[in-house]
Amino acid sequence: MEKVRFGIIGVGNIGTVHARYLLAGQVEGASLAAVCDHNPDKHAVIRRLTGDGVPLFNNAQEMIDSGLIDAVIVATPHYDHPTLSMMAMRAGIHTLCEKPAGVYTAQVQEMNACARECDVQFGIMYNQRPNPLYQKVKDLIDSGELGEIRRSNWIITNWYRSQSYYNSGGWRATWKGEGGGVLLNQDPHQLDLWQWLVGMPVRLRAFCQFGKHRDIEVEDEVTAYAEYANGATGVFITTVAETPGTNRLEIVGSRGKVVVEEGQLRFWRLRESETEFNARWQNGFGEPECWEVSIPCAPECSDHQVITANFTAAILRGEPLIAPGCEGIRGLTLSNAMHLSTWTDDWVDLPFDEQRYYELLHQRIAESVEKPAVSRTLDASGSW
Amino acid sequence: MEKVRFGIIGVGNIGTVHARYLLAGQVEGASLAAVCDHNPDKHAVIRRLTGDGVPLFNNAQEMIDSGLIDAVIVATPHYDHPTLSMMAMRAGIHTLCEKPAGVYTAQVQEMNACARECDVQFGIMYNQRPNPLYQKVKDLIDSGELGEIRRSNWIITNWYRSQSYYNSGGWRATWKGEGGGVLLNQDPHQLDLWQWLVGMPVRLRAFCQFGKHRDIEVEDEVTAYAEYANGATGVFITTVAETPGTNRLEIVGSRGKVVVEEGQLRFWRLRESETEFNARWQNGFGEPECWEVSIPCAPECSDHQVITANFTAAILRGEPLIAPGCEGIRGLTLSNAMHLSTWTDDWVDLPFDEQRYYELLHQRIAESVEKPAVSRTLDASGSW
Repeated sequence: MEKVRFGIIGVGNIGTVHARYLLAGQVEGASLAAVCDHNPDKHAVIRRLTGDGVPLFNNAQEMIDSGLIDAVIVATPHYDHPTLSMMAMRAGIHTLCEKPAGVYTAQVQEMNACARECDVQFGIMYNQRPNPLYQKVKDLIDSGELGEIRRSNWIITNWYRSQSYYNSGGWRATWKGEGGGVLLNQDPHQLDLWQWLVGMPVRLRAFCQFGKHRDIEVEDEVTAYAEYANGATGVFITTVAETPGTNRLEIVGSRGKVVVEEGQLRFWRLRESETEFNARWQNGFGEPECWEVSIPCAPECSDHQVITANFTAAILRGEPLIAPGCEGIRGLTLSNAMHLSTWTDDWVDLPFDEQRYYELLHQRIAESVEKPAVSRTLDASGSW
Repeated sequence: MEKVRFGIIGVGNIGTVHARYLLAGQVEGASLAAVCDHNPDKHAVIRRLTGDGVPLFNNAQEMIDSGLIDAVIVATPHYDHPTLSMMAMRAGIHTLCEKPAGVYTAQVQEMNACARECDVQFGIMYNQRPNPLYQKVKDLIDSGELGEIRRSNWIITNWYRSQSYYNSGGWRATWKGEGGGVLLNQDPHQLDLWQWLVGMPVRLRAFCQFGKHRDIEVEDEVTAYAEYANGATGVFITTVAETPGTNRLEIVGSRGKVVVEEGQLRFWRLRESETEFNARWQNGFGEPECWEVSIPCAPECSDHQVITANFTAAILRGEPLIAPGCEGIRGLTLSNAMHLSTWTDDWVDLPFDEQRYYELLHQRIAESVEKPAVSRTLDASGSW
């Protein structure tokens, strides 16, 4: 294969972003070969976006079977991610799925089994992983510069969404249509990065607020507290109703501290680990010597095409995936566990009871009501 | 009265700080007239500090009855604060008590009743209240600039204390000797400021870690989540084992956000409140216009003598107290409630069950063991 011919399933807010960079030829070795949207009301708008040269399908199975594509980007509402992804995989089509891979973890396990069976590439659109800021944090942790991790804190409240955003699609922010709110739609990146950087906790206690700031069924604000096997603790705070929002990640280890905020990484490095200092110090007050170190880091960049280019290179040249499908389950586990902790008003131990979560989610789905809203495609070019 | 003659009860780490600025004449209208410490082993050191001109007592009642003093600063271990304060009040001596006023709230209610009955000034050494940074935050909130408070977050982890600090006094960090750890000894300022700025929550859920980082009985790390009557949420994170620590307070309101960190106050002001914007906005993505505003603020200052000067002025000229005793109970309520939530592994509604707290605390006191340590006076001049 010399060029990967991409199809996009679902040309809404984010599908439009993917179509644009592929049409502009911004991903080497990739082309936009077909698009698909099951809503005929959107077809005229999609035509204006792609021009007449790109075949437009109404039905995903038809596009998959058309012989026109080698890979798909699945960019529909969350609930359809597993079904459509596995439909493509079974036809031998490499599949790059928007986050979250699914709405509950059992689905994502099935997707991974299917990808292995069908021997296709399966990636998740975690376009924050290649961001140089988080790559550097990962480097500091993996190389031992931070020492043993003690505490992490992510305040991620710059996901502002007005009521009109939620009104732009009847399925939005309903249990039936999305299966969650800010955790499922906006935070998958941070939940994935959080576990990628500091690992998975052994238990968590979360406080989700459902429809507090917006007229929606699902959570629009969350505070979660997590405990890790080595005794470390972590806090994750998110909401869609704050402006100007904060995006501040702080990770403290036994050898220093790193803070990512406002597109900057700051690193404080202890000359002697806190553990060693504490063991030898005899003078009461006093702290180990600490240097604020300026380290080189490329500017923040979270363009979706970085992931699509890596996915293309994986197909063409076997390059390792930055965000393989098998890792898509971890952030979702955190998200599901945060719902479960709130619903049961109790701790959730990890791994958690997936069946209990499934049942409690489906109780909410059974009572869920789609809003009588007109489906609108919004300009998401400034969003992740 | 032309000059207030102060006595200090307890000339340890912090009592020494008070003695120094009074001896140096840094508080107008005040003098150091006597000191008292019940540990004769420390008397030689205290003599070197005060010189021979300041009478040194072994017994607090004797100093109080000596006719030499008009006011006391109570700077002993926490448990003795209520008894010694009320002993002074009953002799008509104005009383400025180190934080925390007491170890459990019932004690502080009794102290306030006693001060009213004896008609003396009763203040708490909350020397962070006059800090220009927090004065400005208070101003922004009280004047409505921040709008309705939605969320607060205080990461206060720059209370680094090595094991040698805890070993400097056998009573330190024991249930019997202090009745708590970082919440009781280091955080009373922040707990007081937190409630002074955003009010008291209606319930909280806290996660205290007891003796996790240090060989102590009490809490050395805490994460607490609070909910307020208007739906606002708050998080408070503290530990003694992190270095370099963080001291970052973020308060978000419907009209903007304020952050105090590294001695700087930053204020983001919305031209239109989030509530109004959300009600009128129809375009999905989009946020209200926001200005980062540079506002004048004097440099950070938390000198203890500011509180002592205010207390002196209250006695001499009836000036209002910056930190009156009656407000000393609120931060302590938060602290007690955080212990209680951890012990019961459950929510604590406020006002909380003081009797239950008293019983659970005294269970721990009954099992508490004083460390066989030599009492040492440390240089606390760099501490609050």
